Amino acid sequence: MDLEKKLLEGNKRAVARLITLVENKDPAAFDLLKKLHNKTGNAYVIGITGPPGAGKSTLTDKLVKALLKEGKKVAVIAIDPTSPFTGGAILGDRVRMNDLATHENVFIRSMGARGSLGGISEGTSAAIKVLDIYGADFIFVETVGVGQSEIDIVKNCDTTVMVMVPGLGDDIQAIKAGIMEIGDVFAINKSDRDGAKKTAREIDAMLDYNMSDWRPPLTMTIAMKNEGIDDLLETIYEHHDYMKSNDLFEKRRITNAKNEIVELVKHRVLDHLLDNAFKEKMINTLSEDVVKRNTDPYTAVERIMTNINK
Amino acid sequence: MDLEKKLLEGNKRAVARLITLVENKDPAAFDLLKKLHNKTGNAYVIGITGPPGAGKSTLTDKLVKALLKEGKKVAVIAIDPTSPFTGGAILGDRVRMNDLATHENVFIRSMGARGSLGGISEGTSAAIKVLDIYGADFIFVETVGVGQSEIDIVKNCDTTVMVMVPGLGDDIQAIKAGIMEIGDVFAINKSDRDGAKKTAREIDAMLDYNMSDWRPPLTMTIAMKNEGIDDLLETIYEHHDYMKSNDLFEKRRITNAKNEIVELVKHRVLDHLLDNAFKEKMINTLSEDVVKRNTDPYTAVERIMTNINK
Repeated sequence: MDLEKKLLEGNKRAVARLITLVENKDPAAFDLLKKLHNKTGNAYVIGITGPPGAGKSTLTDKLVKALLKEGKKVAVIAIDPTSPFTGGAILGDRVRMNDLATHENVFIRSMGARGSLGGISEGTSAAIKVLDIYGADFIFVETVGVGQSEIDIVKNCDTTVMVMVPGLGDDIQAIKAGIMEIGDVFAINKSDRDGAKKTAREIDAMLDYNMSDWRPPLTMTIAMKNEGIDDLLETIYEHHDYMKSNDLFEKRRITNAKNEIVELVKHRVLDHLLDNAFKEKMINTLSEDVVKRNTDPYTAVERIMTNINK
Repeated sequence: MDLEKKLLEGNKRAVARLITLVENKDPAAFDLLKKLHNKTGNAYVIGITGPPGAGKSTLTDKLVKALLKEGKKVAVIAIDPTSPFTGGAILGDRVRMNDLATHENVFIRSMGARGSLGGISEGTSAAIKVLDIYGADFIFVETVGVGQSEIDIVKNCDTTVMVMVPGLGDDIQAIKAGIMEIGDVFAINKSDRDGAKKTAREIDAMLDYNMSDWRPPLTMTIAMKNEGIDDLLETIYEHHDYMKSNDLFEKRRITNAKNEIVELVKHRVLDHLLDNAFKEKMINTLSEDVVKRNTDPYTAVERIMTNINK
């Protein structure tokens, strides 16, 4: 297959083409990923997550540039949440990265939920495999948000950088609950802003309750001014070394593989169950009955469950 | 049943008790919700969502106070994302609402993902029913974030208020994609901050692409100073009237009921499928094999699918 040969040669257009095929759920793409699975596992996968406005794109941009200076080959997957109602267009105009996109050692791709295999998390997993085969030394996966889908996405990563920003107010309490266990290293970005030290103290206090032997390090960064980037990269390397030397690296990858398999199974099962005109009609009728108070949702579900294997 | 009688009398402790029973998946709680389903449908359910730091709690607080002045009975469900790994504690310390919690016409409750029926969205649906039976005229559902779970939660609502804030930078592009179709009315909060007008213009430009006949109105608010609250409430009423007079109100409730039913069915099915020691062991072994490159995730999933109905 021509695509296979070009991919293995590191051809960027082949990479782009294969990710598109994956997004379109083309069976040939997955056949190729099956065949080339033994070429994966070499890239280091770094998740970049945190609340909107934290400056994740700029931070990723600077980390990529630092790695390029070290002669590394780097890929970036930028996840854009898209409308779940229309499967709308991908809006990601991470404009600041444009100067990187033409660099010979960089591949940048925006991905949306639309068309991804099952959920966005599975699409990301597949894209990571493509970039791994392509020969990237580092793959960055950048998400927007702090919700469940972001948590699912970073379950594909070896190290997750949690980017925080001053000025989140009381919402930091709620965010903390979600991020407590997915951040391997922390960056307080825009740290020249008012309240940066307070935010750092709050995060630091939270990390006191961290149960694992690894205490996530916290770096103050100002990505716009390229400040703190080398320090942050250093903490990423430290986390990598810690995982490797404590037999945790492969363990996490097994957990990640398990997560991917379970998600894939879920979506396959649900596709079978819900993609059925008879059940669709039954669900529609029952939904109307619920609103008319002819039945309640729990009774409706029981009725569907007794019909679901027929 | 004593709980039933007290609930119908509007006893707040009965409300709290029943929501706890729902969170603990107590079958008796769902039997009661089935029985009392014909007492639901009277409350107006308002979603409050938007990115972290937008000031949603303060805004909700002020909206509640405005409604209390009109003599309304109001309930608030504050959704706290919790760790998906430990099922950790609920951290919601929405401290500013404390002065409201003791008001006789207000009921406030924090809910986390832990222990909720299936997903957080179904737990929220059940809690809304309890508060509806309790006799709330308005139920606010406040979420933190802009991800998929927040979108699922607001699918329980009659009107969704999207709270935006200046200073989100380029992330506003990504957020916009997710919120485009869930915001029925918009508030630009903290509108005394730099960039408020720019944010308003950006949102306004986005709404030009809105396909429905209802163009979501946009209100500038400063919740901390109680500014713009009455205007915002007015737009919520306008949306309500528009939905009612265009036959869309019941239509949305049917869609919401359908969404609830589908989510409940999903979780029931997955519980059956994945809660099985044999399959658990099979998945674990295959996950290791994927990392050892003995197999790939897609082949692993095919093997599980052929075994799943055995």
